[in-house]
Amino acid sequence: MIAIVGGSGDFGQGLAERLRRAGEEVVIGSRTPRDEFVSNEEACRRAEVVFLSVPPGGVADMSHELRDALAGRIVVSVAAPIVFRDGQAGAQPGDLSLAEIASAAAPEARVVAGFHTVSAKALADPDVPLDEDVLLAGNDAGAKDVVAGLAERLVEGRAVDCGRLEVSRWLETLTAVLLNVNRRYKTNAGVRVTGLPE
Amino acid sequence: MIAIVGGSGDFGQGLAERLRRAGEEVVIGSRTPRDEFVSNEEACRRAEVVFLSVPPGGVADMSHELRDALAGRIVVSVAAPIVFRDGQAGAQPGDLSLAEIASAAAPEARVVAGFHTVSAKALADPDVPLDEDVLLAGNDAGAKDVVAGLAERLVEGRAVDCGRLEVSRWLETLTAVLLNVNRRYKTNAGVRVTGLPE
Repeated sequence: MIAIVGGSGDFGQGLAERLRRAGEEVVIGSRTPRDEFVSNEEACRRAEVVFLSVPPGGVADMSHELRDALAGRIVVSVAAPIVFRDGQAGAQPGDLSLAEIASAAAPEARVVAGFHTVSAKALADPDVPLDEDVLLAGNDAGAKDVVAGLAERLVEGRAVDCGRLEVSRWLETLTAVLLNVNRRYKTNAGVRVTGLPE
Repeated sequence: MIAIVGGSGDFGQGLAERLRRAGEEVVIGSRTPRDEFVSNEEACRRAEVVFLSVPPGGVADMSHELRDALAGRIVVSVAAPIVFRDGQAGAQPGDLSLAEIASAAAPEARVVAGFHTVSAKALADPDVPLDEDVLLAGNDAGAKDVVAGLAERLVEGRAVDCGRLEVSRWLETLTAVLLNVNRRYKTNAGVRVTGLPE
């Protein structure tokens, strides 16, 4: 079972639909449980893998609030420290990445950072293939393998292991680059890493 | 004429050879002029386009020292704020990118940031095609066009306009991600942006 915390946004909705099409059972958590949404805590407790898809400002509190329900779970941190000024996207990272903040707030969670280069808008239309890689960072190799396996069922490309969780600092800000590319080319850009062994 | 300031490193040497093979005239500047190297100032004065390929700690002083020679020139800032700890690559950016620092120190230079995702090691062997894009950022559209034209003669992929110079903050740190990918996969990784219009 895969849980999505903050599943009501574009990213969460698109991810849920794509995971279901890939044959996964998905439960979506919400602050206001209703219809198909359960509470965030219940969603986490039911799942082995939890996608944490909340706004950057909510990562610390949400991870802290859910720390018991997240214990032992594989937690995929997809948030990026994006800010908009005069309609232009930028990043305003702190000393730690949002994934590191989540890991500190929920210390028994097995945090993997990833999917920062996958456009929420592209994800939202499950009929459009995602011609791109998924870039992952994390300290728990087993958790990273599980997320890599999931990622490779969602995209045409591959899951790229970018190393330890700290590397998420520079993955998260890459989202700001792609949002600017999207603006310039009116598209939903993604990334492929070249030069990898076959 | 294209100048390379700091052309004695892997990046500068590989770039010089590849530019020459593409039919460009190249002059290499050095702090210690000898043989084929001229002074950095003379290299800048002779060229229309100057690649600033110096270590991150030298960007501010070098740009300031060369500010008169760089006035009116298109300056390509390729530096990234990379640090190594325990053999692992990371980034230690300041509030401004190195390209922004160069621009502030040489205010009449037309600074374009780019090539941060092109491996110096891959660049160093001019017989190996570079199967990747070049990501550019800058505030001077004309300068960015010229650098894009050069870039597309060096790589198999395309020059991607990532927007204003500020975006270089998140391009420069991307180098740290790729260095970790290189370590993990024992390769010289690059990047292609997917989803761009044909």
